[in-house]
Amino acid sequence: MPTSAPWDSLWIDLSVATMDGATMDGMATGGADAYGAVADAAVGIKDGRIAFVGRRADLPDLPEALATEVHSGQGGWMTPGLIDCHTHLVYGGNRAREFEMRLNGATYEEIARAGGGILSTVTATRAAGEEALLAATLPRLDSLLAEGVTTVEVKSGYGLDTETETRMLCVARRLAQVRPVEVRTSFLGAHALPPEFKGDPDGYIDRLCAETLPAIAEAGLADAVDAFCEGIGFSVAQTRRVFETARRLGLPVKLHAEQLSNLGGAKLVAEFGGLSADHIEHLDEDGVAAMAAAGTVAVLLPGAFYALRETRMPPVDLLRRHGVPMALSTDNNPGTSPVCSLLLMLSMGCTFFRLTPAEALAGVTRHAARALGLSDRGVVAPGKRADLAVWRIEHPAELAYAIGLNPCMAVVNGGVARRPQGPAGVL
Amino acid sequence: MPTSAPWDSLWIDLSVATMDGATMDGMATGGADAYGAVADAAVGIKDGRIAFVGRRADLPDLPEALATEVHSGQGGWMTPGLIDCHTHLVYGGNRAREFEMRLNGATYEEIARAGGGILSTVTATRAAGEEALLAATLPRLDSLLAEGVTTVEVKSGYGLDTETETRMLCVARRLAQVRPVEVRTSFLGAHALPPEFKGDPDGYIDRLCAETLPAIAEAGLADAVDAFCEGIGFSVAQTRRVFETARRLGLPVKLHAEQLSNLGGAKLVAEFGGLSADHIEHLDEDGVAAMAAAGTVAVLLPGAFYALRETRMPPVDLLRRHGVPMALSTDNNPGTSPVCSLLLMLSMGCTFFRLTPAEALAGVTRHAARALGLSDRGVVAPGKRADLAVWRIEHPAELAYAIGLNPCMAVVNGGVARRPQGPAGVL
Ligand SMILES: [Zn+2]
Ligand SMILES: [Zn+2]
Repeated sequence: MPTSAPWDSLWIDLSVATMDGATMDGMATGGADAYGAVADAAVGIKDGRIAFVGRRADLPDLPEALATEVHSGQGGWMTPGLIDCHTHLVYGGNRAREFEMRLNGATYEEIARAGGGILSTVTATRAAGEEALLAATLPRLDSLLAEGVTTVEVKSGYGLDTETETRMLCVARRLAQVRPVEVRTSFLGAHALPPEFKGDPDGYIDRLCAETLPAIAEAGLADAVDAFCEGIGFSVAQTRRVFETARRLGLPVKLHAEQLSNLGGAKLVAEFGGLSADHIEHLDEDGVAAMAAAGTVAVLLPGAFYALRETRMPPVDLLRRHGVPMALSTDNNPGTSPVCSLLLMLSMGCTFFRLTPAEALAGVTRHAARALGLSDRGVVAPGKRADLAVWRIEHPAELAYAIGLNPCMAVVNGGVARRPQGPAGVL
Repeated sequence: MPTSAPWDSLWIDLSVATMDGATMDGMATGGADAYGAVADAAVGIKDGRIAFVGRRADLPDLPEALATEVHSGQGGWMTPGLIDCHTHLVYGGNRAREFEMRLNGATYEEIARAGGGILSTVTATRAAGEEALLAATLPRLDSLLAEGVTTVEVKSGYGLDTETETRMLCVARRLAQVRPVEVRTSFLGAHALPPEFKGDPDGYIDRLCAETLPAIAEAGLADAVDAFCEGIGFSVAQTRRVFETARRLGLPVKLHAEQLSNLGGAKLVAEFGGLSADHIEHLDEDGVAAMAAAGTVAVLLPGAFYALRETRMPPVDLLRRHGVPMALSTDNNPGTSPVCSLLLMLSMGCTFFRLTPAEALAGVTRHAARALGLSDRGVVAPGKRADLAVWRIEHPAELAYAIGLNPCMAVVNGGVARRPQGPAGVL
């Protein structure tokens, strides 16, 4: 084995959509430079980082002399590994029966009486032990990983008590130990009001700020703090208290904002220099401007838009005009977005929200990284983490064009190449 | 090996959604019997057919004494193998660039000048040899097969001349030789007007009826005859001529009908005792009644509805009221429905068209079989083909509820069990 090779591995026989230097303008024109494309490219990897990106013709030596392992991309495309920046992946139970009852004509009350709604997920999650939660989560995670996802954000928010919120985040952290994926966690205690605090949301926020969030922060279980600011969630004043606690604990914030109404959540998260405002179908131009000024990312969630049969679109043109980066994510959750395909969100982002395919790809790479506060990934560039996906496609627009097709041929996690896995069989 | 075992294989440790005896009424109530469900079930297979379906407790002997191979369903569910009854799976090229141009703001004229539209697929398909067409088709087919599809219909219609239509259908037939799938073919010469007949649709139909369709029928390449009856397709009179030729040649008919307007195509296909009328967003009650009287299946195509951002829904309530069976299919095609997931059509059928999950599952099993004129499959019942899928789910509603998740654990094709395959990797 030639230990003198400068790189650990080298990919050739492919084009690269680096997503580096891609500007909104470049995307609007839709030219190859919207993807930061390099044709007939080579990508060298050393110590889990990208050591070289460029034209194969510009390699300083023969491939075999440059790397211990040389991989052929078989004429396909390489992109940054995909980043799913907003998920509620860890939960117990599912809500298929509720989905069915609704389509069978059941009323809201009948579904509630049958134990449906978000509190049914809280009950199931509280009842599940750590191993059961992990086992329930893995098929959903595996579905994402098969499509080239290399980083996933996971929120708590179905425990709504210190013990269960902690358990959810422990499971989220464990995902990275049992699967080839990087995990970022968000504490979402202010997701819904637990039954034991019925009629007393401020009392719940008191406990969250005094006990739960400090305990989670102390244990190092949260990379960020999130909340659901909505008429059916928490008010701006309550959300502000959560954010103030987060700031005191040194944690960045993000927010489920303006999904069903315009309460000013986006402005609030911008005031706290937050990472992202998510959903934002009802966001107005004031909110957009505040986000632009604060560098807050807009996270669009077309899966929830689809499942809820929403018709109000997020203000994509305003976001473009103000230069707010747009990320796309699955919002995987059992109630309003049981989505396990990030590629499908590219399709839905284009079809429902009229994003361009290049904007959609940026939304699950460079802008998704930014929505998580990660500057070491999301583009294919020297020095960045070697988190990469290789696709059997002729043009990167195919990733958004195809519906329910997974053309992933290989995934690289921190320099380690793997083959994407299909569903786990019984045979 | 106990050659005296009465069955070749036996599945235990699962529930079965037989879809047998499922009535529209049963589905509307959404109870377990909407799926023809059997809990704690056993399914015996002999000579590629189902030999036993029932409760495990009713097995006449111990599993090992009954079958050479005993499989555990690990507590999941078995359904009939899925049937995708309307696809244009065989074609050259793709239309991702056209999709991107449109989202980048290109006008219809600019796209046409850049060689977009259905004729670009005709050009690419005519230029592709048989091996190239086969290679282009396999990733799309494999995507369907990974989700438990065991029978797929494939249409011609991108050749529009005798030679290329023949080649397309030869490739369709070959799919069944290189993959574990049954293929039914439909001749769709009346899909679009080829450039060499511009301005002369009747001349094209003349050739189709005099030369192309007879040649295809003679070669045994078509199981049915289809057409696109629409303002931008062919008129009712032209479609009638195609159908009369089909009848003379002994081939059943089906039709792309009432997708963009109500021309009366459904009534026409019913008049010919046709297998199905497909799309039917603009179908009226007269057409529904004609279909009911003729036993013609309604094939709903929510992927095209989605991709075209259609807002007009097919008349699902009318179809229910008249007892017209509703099938669901991908309509896989490069222009208006590049869909490679039949499970996603269950989700979209429920979300867009308000089907119940049981109706959606019937739409890709028993009713899809009927749309192809196949009475030997589509339900789990004694004597039927042992085409089966096994799923890691707790309730069959999960198949329609989950979005972009493939819980398939095993597929059985004519009695032969296989593990569902993931994407083809390069590593
Ligand atoms: Zn969310
Ligand atoms: Zn079609």
